[in-house]
Formats: sequence, C-alpha cells, structure tokens
Amino acid sequence: MNHKLLEKYVELIIRKGINIQPKQQLLIICPIECAWFAHELMKAAYSAESGEVFIRWIDDEGERIRYIHAPDYVFTSYPEWNKLMMNKLCKEKAAVISILSTDPSALQGVSQERIQQDMQSAQIALQYYRDSLMSNRTQWCVLSIPSPSWAQKIFPNLEVDKAMEKLWEKIFLTSHIDRNDPINNWNIHIKELEVRLNILNKYNFKELIFENSLGTKLTLELVKGHIWTGGSERTLEDKIEFIANIPTEEIFTTPKRDGVNGVVYATKPLIYMGDIIEDFVIEFDRGKVINVSARKNQKLLEKLVSSTFGTNFLGEVALVPYDSPVSKSEIIFYNSLYDENASCHLALGKAYPSTVKGTEGKSEEELLKMGVNCSMEHEDFMIGSDDMNITGIMYNGKKIPIFINGNFVF
Amino acid sequence: MNHKLLEKYVELIIRKGINIQPKQQLLIICPIECAWFAHELMKAAYSAESGEVFIRWIDDEGERIRYIHAPDYVFTSYPEWNKLMMNKLCKEKAAVISILSTDPSALQGVSQERIQQDMQSAQIALQYYRDSLMSNRTQWCVLSIPSPSWAQKIFPNLEVDKAMEKLWEKIFLTSHIDRNDPINNWNIHIKELEVRLNILNKYNFKELIFENSLGTKLTLELVKGHIWTGGSERTLEDKIEFIANIPTEEIFTTPKRDGVNGVVYATKPLIYMGDIIEDFVIEFDRGKVINVSARKNQKLLEKLVSSTFGTNFLGEVALVPYDSPVSKSEIIFYNSLYDENASCHLALGKAYPSTVKGTEGKSEEELLKMGVNCSMEHEDFMIGSDDMNITGIMYNGKKIPIFINGNFVF
Repeated sequence: MNHKLLEKYVELIIRKGINIQPKQQLLIICPIECAWFAHELMKAAYSAESGEVFIRWIDDEGERIRYIHAPDYVFTSYPEWNKLMMNKLCKEKAAVISILSTDPSALQGVSQERIQQDMQSAQIALQYYRDSLMSNRTQWCVLSIPSPSWAQKIFPNLEVDKAMEKLWEKIFLTSHIDRNDPINNWNIHIKELEVRLNILNKYNFKELIFENSLGTKLTLELVKGHIWTGGSERTLEDKIEFIANIPTEEIFTTPKRDGVNGVVYATKPLIYMGDIIEDFVIEFDRGKVINVSARKNQKLLEKLVSSTFGTNFLGEVALVPYDSPVSKSEIIFYNSLYDENASCHLALGKAYPSTVKGTEGKSEEELLKMGVNCSMEHEDFMIGSDDMNITGIMYNGKKIPIFINGNFVF
Repeated sequence: MNHKLLEKYVELIIRKGINIQPKQQLLIICPIECAWFAHELMKAAYSAESGEVFIRWIDDEGERIRYIHAPDYVFTSYPEWNKLMMNKLCKEKAAVISILSTDPSALQGVSQERIQQDMQSAQIALQYYRDSLMSNRTQWCVLSIPSPSWAQKIFPNLEVDKAMEKLWEKIFLTSHIDRNDPINNWNIHIKELEVRLNILNKYNFKELIFENSLGTKLTLELVKGHIWTGGSERTLEDKIEFIANIPTEEIFTTPKRDGVNGVVYATKPLIYMGDIIEDFVIEFDRGKVINVSARKNQKLLEKLVSSTFGTNFLGEVALVPYDSPVSKSEIIFYNSLYDENASCHLALGKAYPSTVKGTEGKSEEELLKMGVNCSMEHEDFMIGSDDMNITGIMYNGKKIPIFINGNFVF
C-alpha cells in the first residue's frame, strides 16, 4: 500500500478517530494477522503521549479450531481474565480501537449452536463493557484493514497481493485519506454530516416511511426525544470528541421499539456468526419481527431474530445516501463497517442510548418503557437502494421528503 | 519443513512432552508469529481429549515499541488480567506449553532499566505461577520452533527460507524426530539418561570439581538430599510423567547455596533481557558471586547478578556430554533451551525444589536454611567444553571421575 497514505490513516485514527488524551490508556482489539498495524497505532498513540497501550488479540483460525474440536462444555463459560481486562480498562476509561478484518466466511460450516452459545457467554460476561461503549462512556473507534482472506472474498479474480492493494485503495478512498491533511478532510466531512442531522433534528419527525421498488414499505416511528447523530460523537462525561466508525457516512437514531410496521427488503448480505445471509426480507408488526425469509441461510436469520432478548425488535435506523463514497465504490465489502456506510440500514437489537435524550443512568426496564430497545446483540442490515424514497411525518401530520431516489433531498 | 516430521514433533509434544490428560486444560504461550504452530498443538490436544486450550500471545515487536516509547510508569505494574490468567490456570492444574522462538537480539539497544523494572513487576505478579511450575505442580514443556529472525541469527549467510529450513532440520534432529515412532525414540532416550542419573544418585556425591584448560576451576558442593533429575519428570501429586524441555540432554540437580568456590568460564553466549553477553567469567566465594567480567556486555552481566534477591548464587548444576546431539550440531543457537542441552551449565537464581528431598510445602526461608537457593529469576549459562573434566567427591573423601574430556566416563 501507499506508505504516505498509511501514515495519514494511522494519524487520523489516533488524533481524530479515537482522539487519545494524554495519559489515557488505549486498548487495541486486533487480529493476530494485523499485528504490524497495531504496532503502528501503538507508536502513534505513545507519540501522542497516551498511557499504556494494551492489545487484545483475536485469533480467527484458533476460534475455528475450537468450535470444531473442543468439548461442548467450553462454550458455556467465558474466560474470567478477558472479562477482567475489558471491564477494568473500560472502567478506567481506556479508549478502545477495534480492527475488523475477518474473513466473512471464517466460520462457515461450524456448528451454529456452538457459536451462539459462545456468543451468549461472551455477551453476558462483557455486558458492562458493551453498555459502556454504546453509551459513549469512553472513546471508541472501529476500523478495518485488509486481510488476505477478506481481500480475496471481495476481489476473487485477483491474486492475493493485488487484491490487498486494491482493498487498501478503497479503504483510503472511503476514509477520505488523500494528499491533503486527513484531519482537515474529516473536519469538512463532519461539518457536511452535521448540516443534515441538524435539519433532521429540527424537524423532530414522528415517523419515517421507507419505500422502494424492491417491495420495501416500512413505517418506522422514532422514539420521543430521539437525537440524530453522526460524524463525530462526544463522550458522556468528559465530552471528548471521537469518531466511532472510520469510514462513516451514516446519520442514525433510535426507532420506537413498538412503532415499526411493514416489510423491508435487505439489499446487501448480512454477516452473522461467521457466515453470510443473503437476499432476505423481514416483516414487522408493532415493532416485532413476525416473519423472515432468505434465499440463503434462512435458518441462520431465524436464529438471529430469536437468539437473545430484543433481537426481534429494532434498535437503530441509519440514513446513508446512495451516492456516498463507500457506495460509489460499487463493491460488496462483506464487512458491516463498510457495507453499513454504503447503505441506509436498520439494526436488530440494542439501541444506542446516546441517541435519546434522558437515557443517562436509566435501567433496562426504564429504557424499554421509554421505547428504547435493549438486547445483548446489535446487528446491522442494509436496506438502501438507488430508488429508495424516505418521507418524514411531523407531529402535525405534515409530510417532508427526506430521500428521493436513494439520496437526501437536502 | 518436512510435514511428516512436523506431525511427529507435534505428536511428541502433546502425547509425551506435556502428556495431556483427558479434560485437562492446556495453556500455550506462543509468539504471534508462531500462531500456525499453536493451532497444530490445539488440534492435537483436542484430539487427545484435552479440556479447553488457551493461548497467551507473546508480541516481541510490541514489547520493543513499549520499551522504547511508553511512559516510565507503565513498567512498575503488571496487568492484573495476565496474572489472573496464569495463576488461575495453574491453580486448576492446566498443563503449560511455552514456545520459544524469539530473536535473541530482539531488545538490543532498549533501556535495560526499563526491561529490568518490567521483569521484576512480572516476576512479583507471577510468583505463584513460577513456583508452581518449578515444583512440578502441573506438567510443563518448553520447546522451540524457528522464527525468521532467530533462524537468520544462527545462519546469517543463508536466505531466510533456507535458514528456516535448516533450523527445522536441526530441531527435528536434536529432538529425536526421524522416520521411527517418536514416542519410542524418546522412551529409549529417557532410559539412557536414567542409567546415568541412577549412577549419580547412588554415588550421592558431596562435591563436584570442574576443571578445563580455559581456566575453569570450580568446587561445587551439592545440597544434602539432592536428586539428580533428567529426561522425564513427574508432577508432584498426580505423578503424571512429562518432559519439561524438548530437546533435553541434561542431568541436573541443586548445588548447596553457600558451597560454591572458584572460577568458571562461560563457553557460549548468554541471552539476557533481549541482548547477548559473551565471553565471560564468574568467580564464587562461599556460594556468592564475588567477581564477573565479560568481553561483551559486562554491564548487563553485572545487572544480572545484582538484579533481584538470589541471582548472585547458583540454583542449578547440569551435566551434558560434549557429544550430545545438540552439541554435535556445532551451532550456537542463541537460545537457552538449545544451548543448555549442548553444554554442561549452571544457573544463577532459583533452584528446582523438585530436585531436593523434603522440600515439599517448605517456605523460602526454610529452603534457604536447607541450602536451596531462592530467587525470582533463573538464568542458565553454559560452561561445557571438549576438555572439561568433572570429578565427584564422595562423603568418605573418595574421588570418582564423572567427565573426562567433555564426556561421561560411564
């Protein structure tokens, strides 16, 4: 890859994405194959006078071996030391960078029961950590770098080096990394997103209606006190600015848990438990999923909407123009971070309390009462298309077009 | 490398080296570059019906970056979660495999004060773990696989692939991996070592005298109740047989802490804190190091013998014939595991309580009183040569030749 752009990418992540503070600890969650990149982040963090940098290693191949060969009982528990690491660092407000570059088919053919059991054990153990991040207790940033298996999944006709090179180009392009100052590029980008979310927040819509020629027809009520969020966010107490996803093109908020009705067609594959669900439809009635069907991996989709509490309700609605840079790359990335920034999307499961006024310190019970969905999972799926129309309905009944033919009206 | 031999090497480690028991947990301590090998061990362990296999990753490059760039205060503490992992698994009698394949010069140029501070923090945190392993509370096994930097340190004139290939050959050769059944090879090897240690144990020597033309002249009293150990060992309570080092050619026991007098010349480099000490001499008086000198890295050697309690006394004496397979490879491996099995050696620091009768459950104070050295460190250094003569002095004053010209008399 281009080394000058790489330097800028690293700088962007540390100075703007995670915005590490002097003496603040940093946790990097990193696949072992991406160690070299974690080392670049470490150096940049220390040179920004961070506190200690810790790495939690992800070992996809080891996970696969464990899922296939380990005895059943290992999946019902979660290592105490991992829980201690994640929760302690989170309590001490360490910033968290997650590097995603997993082969989307890494767990194909593995027992879904085992994966599901294992995920649930982890979700229970890491509840404090997850809740803390989703309410912006500390800065967090999710990003990707190419791995050979991921690059070849996207560009199956290229040799591995060429595929890696091409994926790096796409990553730089969509992350606004070019010959200019990346921090400045992002300041401009964030301003553009803010213009739109300020408009949406002023309208304070009661409902959104999604319609396209695929068959999507969905009425989605927004929760009272919802805040459209996007670009950069701020930590709960210290108000430190950070960017939770790089790239990011989405403007998102929280639907009312029991206020979603109609049918929605997915427009990109969904990666879940290391396998790919394709061409699927979900039907909602008073917020609840009442029907799912998929051309590929329907069973897995059924598992998702019945796996744990709350995965059969929506927790997020996000608007992304069809002409966003990620979308214009015209690639299916098989990676939520990228695909979700190329497409309007919804998420099953946990809502981001930071996108609803008055949620600070609220219990799950209280959140549910407010209409804010709770769950241990949060799974995005993509619904955007080039003919998506979205209309906002105000409390006074007035209809305002938001999207026409896949793009923002304003 | 030869894949058939690799399979046998893995089988040897799991079935004979660590001798994993059904449902027993396994901890693999593995450099991230050697992940593929840890995966082979995982598969073999699960197929031997082990319990869960955990990997603790070692990241040499990350460590180097941390030593160079992190703020001072990070070296005075040790991550609680690592301590929990190691101590908990050890308490539950998980078996422990350590893969050594570090570049011997990995930390060259790094602040020795930082490394020393960091090592001490780790040693304090992991005292229970270290003490448990050194008294054979559970099975443990140390082995090596080639890494590019290590292979090129040994074979600097070969290209990296060739150097790796050659190092694999040496590893298979010295680990008795050939076309025959590796378990059977090792049963024979262990029997041969047993013959010699039985003879030594019967003599129950009071003292050993080491002499060669380099200038070594050392009188080394053995502690009362010492047991010559070698080949395979057994766990303290469950008496599970295992091999602590692969390869292993040494027969070792414990010197009397205050019973060592004279001068000893090192015959191979010593790797300490990621750097290399060469051509050095140590002088002892009543057990204590009273003088050291080294042609290369004398300061580092001085650090070693003054670093923590007990590193200025001996904790181990080991006999290895000059014509051992590791020695006959005529290579300096820059790796204690290999170099110590090519040469008679001594260790500064902690003794193995398992090599002295009546040490079970004894406190450090009691061990010291018995003449068994205690320390948080244990550093081997090599003293064997082709003209080393070793004479045993029995309690009745009788002199018995043990080594003549570098090899066992019996």
